[in-house]
Amino acid sequence: MLRVAILGAGRIGKIHAANVAGNPKAKLVIIADPYGTAAKDLADHLGCEASLDPVAAIGRGDVDAVIIGTPTDTHVSLMLHAVRKGKAVLCEKPIDLDIAKVDAAVHEVEQLNGRVMVAFNRRFDPSARQLRRSIDAGEIGDVRQVIITSRDPGMPPREYVRHSGGIFRDMAIHDFDMARWLLGEEPIEVMATASRLVDPGLAELNDFDTLMVQMRTASGRQCHVNCCREAVYGYDQRMEIFGSSGMLLNENLRPTTVRRWSKTGTEVRDPLLNFFLERYAEAYKAEFDQFVDAIESGSPMPTTPHDGRQALRLADCALESALTGRAVKV
Amino acid sequence: MLRVAILGAGRIGKIHAANVAGNPKAKLVIIADPYGTAAKDLADHLGCEASLDPVAAIGRGDVDAVIIGTPTDTHVSLMLHAVRKGKAVLCEKPIDLDIAKVDAAVHEVEQLNGRVMVAFNRRFDPSARQLRRSIDAGEIGDVRQVIITSRDPGMPPREYVRHSGGIFRDMAIHDFDMARWLLGEEPIEVMATASRLVDPGLAELNDFDTLMVQMRTASGRQCHVNCCREAVYGYDQRMEIFGSSGMLLNENLRPTTVRRWSKTGTEVRDPLLNFFLERYAEAYKAEFDQFVDAIESGSPMPTTPHDGRQALRLADCALESALTGRAVKV
Amino acid sequence: MLRVAILGAGRIGKIHAANVAGNPKAKLVIIADPYGTAAKDLADHLGCEASLDPVAAIGRGDVDAVIIGTPTDTHVSLMLHAVRKGKAVLCEKPIDLDIAKVDAAVHEVEQLNGRVMVAFNRRFDPSARQLRRSIDAGEIGDVRQVIITSRDPGMPPREYVRHSGGIFRDMAIHDFDMARWLLGEEPIEVMATASRLVDPGLAELNDFDTLMVQMRTASGRQCHVNCCREAVYGYDQRMEIFGSSGMLLNENLRPTTVRRWSKTGTEVRDPLLNFFLERYAEAYKAEFDQFVDAIESGSPMPTTPHDGRQALRLADCALESALTGRAVKV
Amino acid sequence: MLRVAILGAGRIGKIHAANVAGNPKAKLVIIADPYGTAAKDLADHLGCEASLDPVAAIGRGDVDAVIIGTPTDTHVSLMLHAVRKGKAVLCEKPIDLDIAKVDAAVHEVEQLNGRVMVAFNRRFDPSARQLRRSIDAGEIGDVRQVIITSRDPGMPPREYVRHSGGIFRDMAIHDFDMARWLLGEEPIEVMATASRLVDPGLAELNDFDTLMVQMRTASGRQCHVNCCREAVYGYDQRMEIFGSSGMLLNENLRPTTVRRWSKTGTEVRDPLLNFFLERYAEAYKAEFDQFVDAIESGSPMPTTPHDGRQALRLADCALESALTGRAVKV
Repeated sequence: MLRVAILGAGRIGKIHAANVAGNPKAKLVIIADPYGTAAKDLADHLGCEASLDPVAAIGRGDVDAVIIGTPTDTHVSLMLHAVRKGKAVLCEKPIDLDIAKVDAAVHEVEQLNGRVMVAFNRRFDPSARQLRRSIDAGEIGDVRQVIITSRDPGMPPREYVRHSGGIFRDMAIHDFDMARWLLGEEPIEVMATASRLVDPGLAELNDFDTLMVQMRTASGRQCHVNCCREAVYGYDQRMEIFGSSGMLLNENLRPTTVRRWSKTGTEVRDPLLNFFLERYAEAYKAEFDQFVDAIESGSPMPTTPHDGRQALRLADCALESALTGRAVKV
Repeated sequence: MLRVAILGAGRIGKIHAANVAGNPKAKLVIIADPYGTAAKDLADHLGCEASLDPVAAIGRGDVDAVIIGTPTDTHVSLMLHAVRKGKAVLCEKPIDLDIAKVDAAVHEVEQLNGRVMVAFNRRFDPSARQLRRSIDAGEIGDVRQVIITSRDPGMPPREYVRHSGGIFRDMAIHDFDMARWLLGEEPIEVMATASRLVDPGLAELNDFDTLMVQMRTASGRQCHVNCCREAVYGYDQRMEIFGSSGMLLNENLRPTTVRRWSKTGTEVRDPLLNFFLERYAEAYKAEFDQFVDAIESGSPMPTTPHDGRQALRLADCALESALTGRAVKV
Repeated sequence: MLRVAILGAGRIGKIHAANVAGNPKAKLVIIADPYGTAAKDLADHLGCEASLDPVAAIGRGDVDAVIIGTPTDTHVSLMLHAVRKGKAVLCEKPIDLDIAKVDAAVHEVEQLNGRVMVAFNRRFDPSARQLRRSIDAGEIGDVRQVIITSRDPGMPPREYVRHSGGIFRDMAIHDFDMARWLLGEEPIEVMATASRLVDPGLAELNDFDTLMVQMRTASGRQCHVNCCREAVYGYDQRMEIFGSSGMLLNENLRPTTVRRWSKTGTEVRDPLLNFFLERYAEAYKAEFDQFVDAIESGSPMPTTPHDGRQALRLADCALESALTGRAVKV
Repeated sequence: MLRVAILGAGRIGKIHAANVAGNPKAKLVIIADPYGTAAKDLADHLGCEASLDPVAAIGRGDVDAVIIGTPTDTHVSLMLHAVRKGKAVLCEKPIDLDIAKVDAAVHEVEQLNGRVMVAFNRRFDPSARQLRRSIDAGEIGDVRQVIITSRDPGMPPREYVRHSGGIFRDMAIHDFDMARWLLGEEPIEVMATASRLVDPGLAELNDFDTLMVQMRTASGRQCHVNCCREAVYGYDQRMEIFGSSGMLLNENLRPTTVRRWSKTGTEVRDPLLNFFLERYAEAYKAEFDQFVDAIESGSPMPTTPHDGRQALRLADCALESALTGRAVKV
């Protein structure tokens, strides 16, 4: 039975807390959040302890693992504190917005043989896993091109954008991780372009809302990523992998399988599931399941701090490319 | 070069005339229609002769084959006249509305070794042919159930219905032919139900607008047919064949492959092609091609007067079942 | 908090037990099953009491509701016992295989104002609910035809078939309930045909493996049902509702949204979810949720003993039609 | 009646010749090809004159328009000769592989008010036209991103590649034209990457077989193009246009609408139509129809030499970007 502390009782903390509570191999011991009554409210609902002090929660003798869902700028210190105390860690991404700080943290975790998993939830989606399994099974031969479409249903609050690190680091970072995972090789060159087509006012924050990225690996495999902060038809998450003997696509999820036929259109399907909490509900569950399984079995973490570092590095390169109009070597 | 006379210059005569004119193995000699200027107008457009006398057209020495697209009650006499003159015949269905008259005609054609093909256009549709080819290739093992959906875009004119023989004989007759062709066995029992859900006024004509038919063969294969005179979303033509090792479906045709995504619906496709002239344009071409090929090669006609007779017999049985509420033995 | 006893610890009892345990508004008090260690094993896993005596479990003061998942021939006596004790009941279908016994039981439940829900799980499937909602919202106008396809992945064990009441009563009964629910009117006439195309040996049990049923309502709405005990491509569950202003279809569920393209085929999708436990996992959850909600709010049960009675009656009529070759009035 | 000369009796010349012969508003006068018996064979088949001298054919008094389907390096001189003689021209793309030569030719055509259409066949595909119509109708609001997938079924002969100008100029040029047409604005910056993943031996020709291109317009609209010389599942031609109020996709064409379900996969569709002659058969017809209509009505040509020039310019920029690893300003 893995005894778990949740750090951060916000939107993502709630998801993790529910999954811990529902997992028969885990026990939710404590939820810690320094802000107001968030931890208490959530703990009362799930029947565990609450605290205003994440550091203290990490230190408890009856806690084996911590899940870090606090604001990004606290990730590194909490992660390192937990690793030093010998606790396993599931840390939300990005590890940090500053690649130097991330490099130092990854280095220390590796020195200490820390057990840290970075929460790239999309890798645990059943359809994404099937893509990876099909590639591994040789269904499409050698991978040639990967095409990733990733559009959010609507602009996040301005306040979020101000502190998020920008669209490359808060949104496309997921797609950079997918790209590495599906390409099966590291991208060595990044070309990007970015625009403000949804909200021209983002210029004051030096941010963008619409982007395209193009990458290649040493052997010449190619990847395209497109993102937009707003798609009126819903949260659009598609992937295509084209190989020497076939192609794989995965489509969006919808609440039902109903199709409608009328005078004005045929085969009309439901709108898409609205956003990541609904779209990736199963993925979040599977992510925590695999975290528990890796700890129990002592096998390698399915995603590592190195993965978190690489995705951030690609985001930084893409931003540089978009600003300079040059291909950037990774 | 097959020299062809077209009898009847109406809607279906025009289709046949254009296909004859466009076929490099055939020559359109004459179009005959006793009504007004229809034959002349069409002949002028296509560059052939016109006549008001179908019987005379059949008799011409420079005519090898006739296509009969005149009103139903003239089919038998024109067909028999042509057969007696040694001409090949492509005859629109139904052969006649009276099964006794059809039986006599089929008997005479067979006695004379007449070369007659009945125009069941749907058998020549590329998707329908693929269904039959896939069944023949053993793709789905033994056929167990056939499900045929057949809905027209809208009610025909009242005047048409008055003389058509009713929904079972003018509309479902196509589906009875499909049923026999796809089942690969003759239906031996028919159960039907019919309603007036589109136009209650059809009661004065003792006709219906919405029906379901259920049939079985001697070995126990089953077939369901559903028809309706009106589908607001267009001409709906689908078939499903379920077998011991798989299933085949064929979907409707549309003018383009575009799909639309908006706030209100996703994957929205075009409306269906409106009606049989558009939907089966390729089938009409292929039907004539195979008529020519059968004549040139001396091989059996792809559809025979016997096929026309059997489809009408099933229509009669279905009507009787709908009126009596009993299963009718064929 | 609704305190629940589960009667029967077999395949379906396990599903219900897990859903009770996972529902925040319910408490699983006891699992009772007279056979071996089934109740104890399941109770140990879920942390509740176990018993060999279902009748005693019903009588406990700390039990508000019972879920009956025992063999069919015990349903009526357990249901009536619970109703007499004032307990709410969620009873698996069929209520019984003997319509007279069912009629008597339904009568007594109604006399006692018993709170009984019959477990027609498919009505609670998200896609089925969307169909009903779309019909109610007028999306397709007046319903004209309903087409229900229902094929199992493979033959059940011979021993099951011997006691199940046959394909009409154990399998098609679900489709009869769907038919009533989607037609929005009671069928008044049933025509059926049945064959042994999968296993001719079923003749010794006077049972069938492949059937088609056709029904009509007083206003002329029509319904077709097809069933087969074996579909090699998986558990096939589709519905089509055709109305005066449109059509609704619902497709099968699959584990992922991946499509594959290769030399031999394109758009290839996953096999279907294997069988009802997987296919209707969400429906079973929603069924119990609505049972709890109806009890808490005092609103009518979403499905009633009368619904269970009507579905059985249609199954009996269909079997009679298949055996006699006549339309049977309901 | 437009009197037409066809120059070049190869693969594409045959397509044009058949479309001219089948168009009621046009008359095929002569086919000219200096090589062997190609012109004679085709002319005999279609019943027109043949010649070994394209220049003489242009000069004939009974020729109003010429279609140029000769090798690329003869396009400019034949086109200019025809324009000087006052003939209308439908010229295959590319106009030439040398942008300077193209610029000079376009300049002269414009000076002479020449009636020249460049054969970008894809613009005339029914689905592509529907995309453009839907955009123009405001269905998706402002265009934000265009994604074009363009994969050939297999490598062309080495000899073809040696003289084609390379993958950017002979293959992607179609996609550059589509990009301009669908974006509704001129790309101002191009980033490209190219690999040899199908045939490493292309290195001797300094050519590639797999590429990605990324472009942006002055207002920030973005476009991604991906190409590969080989897709084992067939000729893959898809487009996606993402806008502020929706998205449009167009899918590939197949010979039938049949779907197959078996133990190993569900919804399996036919392979794609093999290559451009089949895939764009309707587009070639419509292209010639619009050429005739533009001449008859005196309205602007639907595609102009300027369009041919711009597509080549984008191809040159993309190649430069792939070779230098820099974004290239157009």
